[in-house]
Amino acid sequence: MELKEAILNRRTVRRFNSKAISDETLLDILEAGTWAPSHGNNQPWEFILAGPETRGKLAVAYRKAMESGPLLNPDLPEERKQVIRNFSMNFGDAPVILAVTCAPALTDLDRYDFPMSAAAAIQNILLAAWEKQIAGVWLSFGSTPQARSLFGIPEEGKIAGILALGYPEVIPPAQPRISAINKLSKLP
Amino acid sequence: MELKEAILNRRTVRRFNSKAISDETLLDILEAGTWAPSHGNNQPWEFILAGPETRGKLAVAYRKAMESGPLLNPDLPEERKQVIRNFSMNFGDAPVILAVTCAPALTDLDRYDFPMSAAAAIQNILLAAWEKQIAGVWLSFGSTPQARSLFGIPEEGKIAGILALGYPEVIPPAQPRISAINKLSKLP
Repeated sequence: MELKEAILNRRTVRRFNSKAISDETLLDILEAGTWAPSHGNNQPWEFILAGPETRGKLAVAYRKAMESGPLLNPDLPEERKQVIRNFSMNFGDAPVILAVTCAPALTDLDRYDFPMSAAAAIQNILLAAWEKQIAGVWLSFGSTPQARSLFGIPEEGKIAGILALGYPEVIPPAQPRISAINKLSKLP
Repeated sequence: MELKEAILNRRTVRRFNSKAISDETLLDILEAGTWAPSHGNNQPWEFILAGPETRGKLAVAYRKAMESGPLLNPDLPEERKQVIRNFSMNFGDAPVILAVTCAPALTDLDRYDFPMSAAAAIQNILLAAWEKQIAGVWLSFGSTPQARSLFGIPEEGKIAGILALGYPEVIPPAQPRISAINKLSKLP
């Protein structure tokens, strides 16, 4: 697949069909993540796959977080809430739930750098997945103490993202983007 | 260019030839950045181009930071120090110095999410640049108060990265990576 096609056509998907992701395919996708840049090549990312037990606990915690957060938000359109409700039943039946975490950071520089290198790795993973007709959603639920505890992340560590990955049942249309020219300013 | 070729062959480059990057090419590369995912499509990234005056001040601050940091580190090999010294003369003659910054974050979720979305945008930018034979380096110097001040970033904002971009004079060999399988663990 052409690079531009992957970057422009990748979509966030929250509903998956029943096809499993093979170990080989998953490793191939994660391998793309390891080619992200990192400070002094420190490669701070780690990948943690949730098995059925962890996934079950995570789903309960996720539903609670949605019910006490976005689903209570009067400004969120009902359509968005329905998407969240459906997804939070069982992560849209995604066959893979994976945390991309950062090694414990002991310096200010590492605290700054590690999550961003891990985020760059996640972007590579999402693009490499898309090439294989696999998509998913990057959940910020990884920021919660519940998620950190379930994935066993120490105080100095961090979850850069929890990814739900699978073969899409439904691919939503592109979300509109603000053009780069309207995001660009120039200093003297 | 094939996606995998871009992901696997992209290199961090610290020495550039004299060819300029046209405005059109730069905007095309930045446009790829805007297709990164973000929470609720909030698109928190902003791009700030440093002109000659800002660049000059930035170069002085960068050199000072290197001289009082990595260049004093007795554990850093002399070869690495020479690369830093050469690069810090004038950012390796990179024609473009650009900060990718985050909108001011006023909630814990935004403080968590914004830098990672901006980092995903940077990865798209580096890949899209590579397709156009353009490369660069993602400097964590953006974490310093000096850089924040020179780019005019408010208290609640953040620089996700300062990028030095240009056409490579020298493309270094790949830095070795730890395979995904050695970064992967499985929970029950």
